[in-house]
Amino acid sequence: MRIATFTHDGRRQVGIVSPDGQQLRPFKLAPEQAALGAQLLVEAQVRGEPLPETGAPIDMSAVRLEAPLPRPRRNVWCVGRNYHAHAKELAGSVFKNNAANPMEWPIVFTKVPECVVGPTDTVKLPGADVSDQIDYEAELALVIGKGGKNITKADALSHIYGYTIVNDVTARDVQMRHQQWDMGKSFDTFCPMGPWIVTADELDGTRTQVRCHVNGELRQEAGTENLIFDIPTLIETISRGITLYPGDVIATGTPAGVGMGFQPPRYLRSGDVVRVEVDGIGFIENRFE
Amino acid sequence: MRIATFTHDGRRQVGIVSPDGQQLRPFKLAPEQAALGAQLLVEAQVRGEPLPETGAPIDMSAVRLEAPLPRPRRNVWCVGRNYHAHAKELAGSVFKNNAANPMEWPIVFTKVPECVVGPTDTVKLPGADVSDQIDYEAELALVIGKGGKNITKADALSHIYGYTIVNDVTARDVQMRHQQWDMGKSFDTFCPMGPWIVTADELDGTRTQVRCHVNGELRQEAGTENLIFDIPTLIETISRGITLYPGDVIATGTPAGVGMGFQPPRYLRSGDVVRVEVDGIGFIENRFE
Repeated sequence: MRIATFTHDGRRQVGIVSPDGQQLRPFKLAPEQAALGAQLLVEAQVRGEPLPETGAPIDMSAVRLEAPLPRPRRNVWCVGRNYHAHAKELAGSVFKNNAANPMEWPIVFTKVPECVVGPTDTVKLPGADVSDQIDYEAELALVIGKGGKNITKADALSHIYGYTIVNDVTARDVQMRHQQWDMGKSFDTFCPMGPWIVTADELDGTRTQVRCHVNGELRQEAGTENLIFDIPTLIETISRGITLYPGDVIATGTPAGVGMGFQPPRYLRSGDVVRVEVDGIGFIENRFE
Repeated sequence: MRIATFTHDGRRQVGIVSPDGQQLRPFKLAPEQAALGAQLLVEAQVRGEPLPETGAPIDMSAVRLEAPLPRPRRNVWCVGRNYHAHAKELAGSVFKNNAANPMEWPIVFTKVPECVVGPTDTVKLPGADVSDQIDYEAELALVIGKGGKNITKADALSHIYGYTIVNDVTARDVQMRHQQWDMGKSFDTFCPMGPWIVTADELDGTRTQVRCHVNGELRQEAGTENLIFDIPTLIETISRGITLYPGDVIATGTPAGVGMGFQPPRYLRSGDVVRVEVDGIGFIENRFE
């Protein structure tokens, strides 16, 4: 099942994408329920409630897709340095003074919920006085279904509601100079997400391909089976001492090929279009301005 | 004005603390409004709306104080290494491999909203298998009133709704091994907050004293005029490219004297009681178990 949040006739709705992708069946939700996108739906399904009734199908061409969780319940969890080749490409920059073994412990940081935008929304460059090193990071993200604390690797996959795509847009200069990354990752519009959530019964997130094109040029491509810390390990690690909740989003890290990894770096400029694809989900495509 | 969130007769309410501290005048709010503590009140005041009507006074002795913002709208912003003496005491541990000049840029990280607990609530040690290096950090925290982006230092103080107290409880081993700090700062119950918000017209947060006692022993004491990055600078820095919202909480950093700074370190054990005081606000006192 693919769950999408969308705007139709000026109203936010949540619905199921038809198998051929041409239509959406909107759930009958009160406006204040639909305002949270798929959040209440995830919570209701975790409680074992049936899906809400759906209304008449709407043509996909008549809607504007939004992030499936337009404002996640708290900061989005993100994982740094989680593909070997990416760890290597940033060894001379982000990790220049970093003696830690990348294999030992995952790096986990956050993005504020309000920086989430939709799968085709514009990402706003913050202005050169704030940062002129804006970079893309293509990522598979998972959405937690059943919450919990101290979840074991063995149980972890049963806590995943589904998967979506995130571009973990980053201001590299801000990321590095403040040492902790949350700020350089949290500028307004810096978390394109979508185009929908694919439920975990329809996608094996542990074996899928992540790809990024900038203006049509392939920049990143890797399979999630190459993650340094696989998805069960990430869930086990983050939930140690910290309760995870339905609707929590965890972005699993980005493959090699980010702009900072080039010599000289290839940061994003106004007019650039970044497309992030994950096999089995689809793609998001955002213009930077 | 002191705005408190509290439970009375099993119901969460928000009210004004009387000048003598003996009573609370509860606002007439619907339960779903009071559920968010002072959040909607802050938002309403920013919109220029009058305070809601209040009901009959309630004796302070009949209530249980909760965090003024029991679940902040997103992760709590926190500042690291923001007093000179504290920067020095952690130079050999948290900042061992850190060549950055502490004077250059503030370190900003977050704590999840769900780890906030009340001013007298119990903090739960996560168990030695998760962390046996639990530490206290006494801090003055500010609550944003009027939101905004790219706020200048000159305007910053006008964006503060008020001040409260936070204990930025930290699992040192987790903080360090994951490099990014959010996880080691976000264990369940790791953000005692309260006892109320003192509005900015009644307290100059830029000149007040922060103190911490563990089991009655004074461990931390410093004036906020000694912050490396003062409050206007913190607001200017965090709001560069990132919109701040009413109800955002920014904890301003902790003075020297944390447990990790001792030789050998003095981490918290079951039964310890940590009291954090800020002159002009009051104190929070939490037992660790």
